[in-house]
Amino acid sequence: MEKRALLYEGKAKRVYMTDDENLVWIQYKDSATAFNGEKKAEITGKGRLNNEITSLLFSKLHEAGVASHFVERLSETEQLVKKVNIIPLETVVRNVAAGSFSKRLGIEEGKPLSKPLVEFYLKNDDLGDPIMTDDQIFELGLANEKEVALLKEKALKVNSILSSFFAELGINLIDFKLEFGKDAAGEVLLADEISPDTCRLWDKETNAKLDKDVFRRDLGNLTDAYENILERLGGPQHV
Amino acid sequence: MEKRALLYEGKAKRVYMTDDENLVWIQYKDSATAFNGEKKAEITGKGRLNNEITSLLFSKLHEAGVASHFVERLSETEQLVKKVNIIPLETVVRNVAAGSFSKRLGIEEGKPLSKPLVEFYLKNDDLGDPIMTDDQIFELGLANEKEVALLKEKALKVNSILSSFFAELGINLIDFKLEFGKDAAGEVLLADEISPDTCRLWDKETNAKLDKDVFRRDLGNLTDAYENILERLGGPQHV
Ligand SMILES: Nc1ncnc2c1ncn2[C@@H]1O[C@H](COP(=O)(O)OP(=O)(O)OP(=O)(O)O)[C@@H](O)[C@H]1O
Ligand SMILES: Nc1ncnc2c1ncn2[C@@H]1O[C@H](COP(=O)(O)OP(=O)(O)OP(=O)(O)O)[C@@H](O)[C@H]1O
Ligand SMILES: [Mg+2]
Ligand SMILES: [Mg+2]
Repeated sequence: MEKRALLYEGKAKRVYMTDDENLVWIQYKDSATAFNGEKKAEITGKGRLNNEITSLLFSKLHEAGVASHFVERLSETEQLVKKVNIIPLETVVRNVAAGSFSKRLGIEEGKPLSKPLVEFYLKNDDLGDPIMTDDQIFELGLANEKEVALLKEKALKVNSILSSFFAELGINLIDFKLEFGKDAAGEVLLADEISPDTCRLWDKETNAKLDKDVFRRDLGNLTDAYENILERLGGPQHV
Repeated sequence: MEKRALLYEGKAKRVYMTDDENLVWIQYKDSATAFNGEKKAEITGKGRLNNEITSLLFSKLHEAGVASHFVERLSETEQLVKKVNIIPLETVVRNVAAGSFSKRLGIEEGKPLSKPLVEFYLKNDDLGDPIMTDDQIFELGLANEKEVALLKEKALKVNSILSSFFAELGINLIDFKLEFGKDAAGEVLLADEISPDTCRLWDKETNAKLDKDVFRRDLGNLTDAYENILERLGGPQHV
């Protein structure tokens, strides 16, 4: 597999074309950003940690029957994935109230929800990723009724698999963000990343935050937290 | 009917108890507020205009078979209504993109929607009335699935009646906000007000704004605009 031109550089990853038009090469960066890019830092090791953790979690999901863009881990900071057209919605699943949900709706952080809640946010940094109702999604033509139902179903399945998996490792999966895209054949695939950048992970015993809130809220050393997650997951995947 | 103790004073109305525990006496005030109370003014005549317009519109809806809290107009600035427990959701219907919808989602103001869109906002000034998805409404226990479906159905019926009615008067009903409540028998009734404070009303010919945006955006004389609406509606209701 050959790495070709840079297709897109985001805040956390670079996406390169390859000699196969259906595959892209993703390189995880050491940048940390929060609050829609307002807070920024370079954190050595973060790219490696997110690449390793995402690779492990996509493999785990694959074993459990969830199709994703993930093809293989290429190096400490790189992975090969299927190229998709990203659906411009961030799909969030919440098990416990936290973050913007708590703040917007006045619900105490840490309050368990009666059942997993799926939310959609418009993937648009200029607009600050506003939350959208299903009817707004239909009106804007971002997804139709069948697709929204499919995204919810897939997101809840990922939640049920990852919640159990993390629970075995002494970790509470509080909430997480997914991105989905359509591959060349039009199939909806789970894409992007699943890492402590995109999940809230609290230690079951101590409630210690082992995710990007460590950076957002200045709670300590970010790579220590991510390293802790990677270790509990069984360390880097060796291919 | 006797007016008793003040039950609640809002930004736009005072609600008084009466000698009938199932009825309240509403007095419309001359205060104008916008942006969650940040912008304020006293505008002589506004209370009268909103009371007259709301009375006419609730009567019109009653004729068309929509039950509301409205009992009767008592004076230029007062009306008698059934006491309800307000469901803490603002139900918004949109026919054309405008206001917060345009701003949040980046849709040009004035763009017609493909069909009427219903949205719910948490009625909570401290939280800035955040928009809510149906699943969030269920999770917070604000309404159940049957109730949300009922609110949508009622809101769309009000929209269809009022859109036609305003169209006959040369006015485009762009969007509006409704409040619903439960009466002593548990029946869900349309409540609060329907006025240029709670609707966007644009002249069909000129697109001139004949609603609270005149105040929000400093577009001219508010009472001239509201007076224009009242006149087209056939002037004050004489009882
Ligand atoms: N399989 C894929 N094919 C194509 N693009 C992808 C794929 N997986 C993820 N992407 C996209 O790669 C981009 C780079 O990722 P990164 O996380 O750095 O973006 P970002 O700065 O968070 O910006 P965004 O807000 O767009 O996610 C994102 O837009 C992401 O949606
Ligand atoms: N039939 C009714 N029975 C009881 N309360 C009512 C009824 N109709 C309206 N209300 C309530 O009367 C209050 C006063 O109205 P007003 O419009 O002044 O409130 P407000 O300042 O806009 O505050 P809010 O944000 O609570 O609406 C509102 O809380 C409204 O929901
Ligand atoms: Mg990203
Ligand atoms: Mg009000």
